[in-house]
Amino acid sequence: MPLKSWIASANDGETDFPLENLPCGVFSVGDGDLRCGIAIGDRIVDATGLEEAGLLRPDPEALVLDAPAWNDFMELGPQAWASYRARLTAMLRHDAPDAARDAIATYSVPMRKAALHMPFRVAEYTDFYASRHHATNVGTMFRGPDNALPPNWLSIPIGYNGRASSVVVSRNPVRRPWGQVKAPDEALPHFAPSTRFDFELELGAIVGLPSDGPVSVARAEAMIFGYVLLNDWSARDIQAWEYQPLGPFQAKATATSISPWIVPAAALAPFRRPVPDRLRPVLPHLDEPHPTGLDIALEIGLTPQDGVETVIARTNASELYWSAAQQLAHHTTSGCPMRVGDLLGSGTVSGAAPDSRGALLELSWNGEKPITLADGQSRSFLDDGDTVTLRGHAQGAGFRIGFGACTGTVLPALDDPYPA
Amino acid sequence: MPLKSWIASANDGETDFPLENLPCGVFSVGDGDLRCGIAIGDRIVDATGLEEAGLLRPDPEALVLDAPAWNDFMELGPQAWASYRARLTAMLRHDAPDAARDAIATYSVPMRKAALHMPFRVAEYTDFYASRHHATNVGTMFRGPDNALPPNWLSIPIGYNGRASSVVVSRNPVRRPWGQVKAPDEALPHFAPSTRFDFELELGAIVGLPSDGPVSVARAEAMIFGYVLLNDWSARDIQAWEYQPLGPFQAKATATSISPWIVPAAALAPFRRPVPDRLRPVLPHLDEPHPTGLDIALEIGLTPQDGVETVIARTNASELYWSAAQQLAHHTTSGCPMRVGDLLGSGTVSGAAPDSRGALLELSWNGEKPITLADGQSRSFLDDGDTVTLRGHAQGAGFRIGFGACTGTVLPALDDPYPA
Repeated sequence: MPLKSWIASANDGETDFPLENLPCGVFSVGDGDLRCGIAIGDRIVDATGLEEAGLLRPDPEALVLDAPAWNDFMELGPQAWASYRARLTAMLRHDAPDAARDAIATYSVPMRKAALHMPFRVAEYTDFYASRHHATNVGTMFRGPDNALPPNWLSIPIGYNGRASSVVVSRNPVRRPWGQVKAPDEALPHFAPSTRFDFELELGAIVGLPSDGPVSVARAEAMIFGYVLLNDWSARDIQAWEYQPLGPFQAKATATSISPWIVPAAALAPFRRPVPDRLRPVLPHLDEPHPTGLDIALEIGLTPQDGVETVIARTNASELYWSAAQQLAHHTTSGCPMRVGDLLGSGTVSGAAPDSRGALLELSWNGEKPITLADGQSRSFLDDGDTVTLRGHAQGAGFRIGFGACTGTVLPALDDPYPA
Repeated sequence: MPLKSWIASANDGETDFPLENLPCGVFSVGDGDLRCGIAIGDRIVDATGLEEAGLLRPDPEALVLDAPAWNDFMELGPQAWASYRARLTAMLRHDAPDAARDAIATYSVPMRKAALHMPFRVAEYTDFYASRHHATNVGTMFRGPDNALPPNWLSIPIGYNGRASSVVVSRNPVRRPWGQVKAPDEALPHFAPSTRFDFELELGAIVGLPSDGPVSVARAEAMIFGYVLLNDWSARDIQAWEYQPLGPFQAKATATSISPWIVPAAALAPFRRPVPDRLRPVLPHLDEPHPTGLDIALEIGLTPQDGVETVIARTNASELYWSAAQQLAHHTTSGCPMRVGDLLGSGTVSGAAPDSRGALLELSWNGEKPITLADGQSRSFLDDGDTVTLRGHAQGAGFRIGFGACTGTVLPALDDPYPA
């Protein structure tokens, strides 16, 4: 039985933002300042306003929602997260007292009037490679089917450090990058705009508690404040030339888009599922103590300039062989300090079926089998003007925990990256 | 003819900190608070104190040295850097007026009484691989002499994103990490303390100006505020198992030590040298418009627990095939935004001679030829209790621009990384 809110739009079963969700974002209205907000149905609760007015304070001692970013709130820790969530839920429930309704009515805005901004300051960004189907597909393309999975893949949730400065919120356009590329028949590289620009459908986990030494998978799970959808824009031609032996670098540094709402881990707790069956025993420090995977339906829409959207893939986060908690535990094995605001990308989420693959590289099989869009156009990689939209939700009984869209449009490359 | 200061200890020709240097650090005395300071001879000028008292303000409008870190100062830009340097030089010169001497006398402390702290907040940390001898040695060990340099190496200053949270200032001990390792004769990995823990001698460049798009090498050079010595502690056994295909991750995340003083790029300008001759033509956007390498003598001391130091290698930063300016220019090719406080490690600095190699991996040739210390002990990799000390200076006529030592001692691994 879904929770019922006195805000009717939260109860229709279709909204991404029912009372069970309460995701955290940052918004502005018109020329107003940036404020922390919570999505509920078709409205945004002005959490900064409620705090300033003393009507709902996460911390009795200090303002934490004036930044504007949710980092200071995260610093308060899980008890404060739970307490805030419980108190806000009580203010939004169908049986909320009049005073609470008045407070929310005063401190909320229609979502359609709001612009959304980065919901948190990204401390550091790490990108993993946790979907077995994705790693197998990519490995098959580049190393053949016999060596598709790297030897370490079934033992380590392998990942690399990405570039936090590249992270932008949904709706920011993304400019096609220049870079060094070398075709197989060329002796030397040249410098040119990427012609194999791609997206990657990922789930992003946000670290809400710091650590300073190895942490267990159970502890790691408790450190995760919430989740976003994440598009790891990738220049495949730049990547192919640069990535040996130190890994992806400029190919992944142009931009990384995230959805605007941090869906709390608490809202997703009912949707935990065990990670897929192990194909090789996992060392004890990476074993999951209880289910740490997540059942989140995901889809990718591709819209050509002035065209209509085609949903080009559907998959599920439960395909991920390594959960965010396992990734985070591995991240700390060496003693690597983790900080509030660290963002962990899951890696491309791909399923077994050809239409459940999370990147054009796989969907078009390295350009060999271009996909066809609703209007008859075909794509191997992204064209200028293409808009990529990621969507995701966990389906409850009569409600869904949604993320809001993560979208971005490809702008043409600069004519001259080094004007005189 | 060296500049002369009224602080006699700055004039002896031996100090790392003559009037030509004026490096930026953060210090405290006793239980006092952390303050921005400038090293001169055997003293530290209390730059925060001079600013507070209105005696020397980098910015007439706002306090920028109260953080305590040099980031806000860097944000002011090169004109402010140069103006501050000129004004402080005038206050410290032999012909400084009495008022300036009184100000410095009030706002300075003996260096021996001070503890030194992180001089800046690391925004993000990138580590390059820019020494040809280092890359050739490592490649020879692992891929054989015919494929020693990766195909891209002569065309790209290749690098990977490191972990900013791992950066600590000199004198912090470093705990031997645990990690997944797999010996060649093992079928599966196990989880254990690293037995091949190593250092890497590097030069670190600090970005002082942001960018938001591709920047030229000339512009990149102007963005570099200063330099530190950097020890990229590396667990070779963890690295060997994890690094394919996404690059080093936990092997490099335990700690990265830097020297406590940021030596201004302005102080090193007289020591610019052309980068080594190109073995393959460089694409125009990475060519140096004028000399961008640096003539900095470097050395590594290794001191066993309760033992004496042996200088185990001497080399020079001018060995780096790619300068920091070239690295930074490459870093921006994809449009990757750079921010004030970004730290770029050069990669291990190795020369051609066996005793000019910047890591034990090379000095002991992957453990095949252990090195011998002054007291007769041998080392293939680091023992618990070993102290590694990096030193560096540019030699002028009658003065030297030094960095102060970058030192760290290896602590034993945790007995149990996951206590119940």
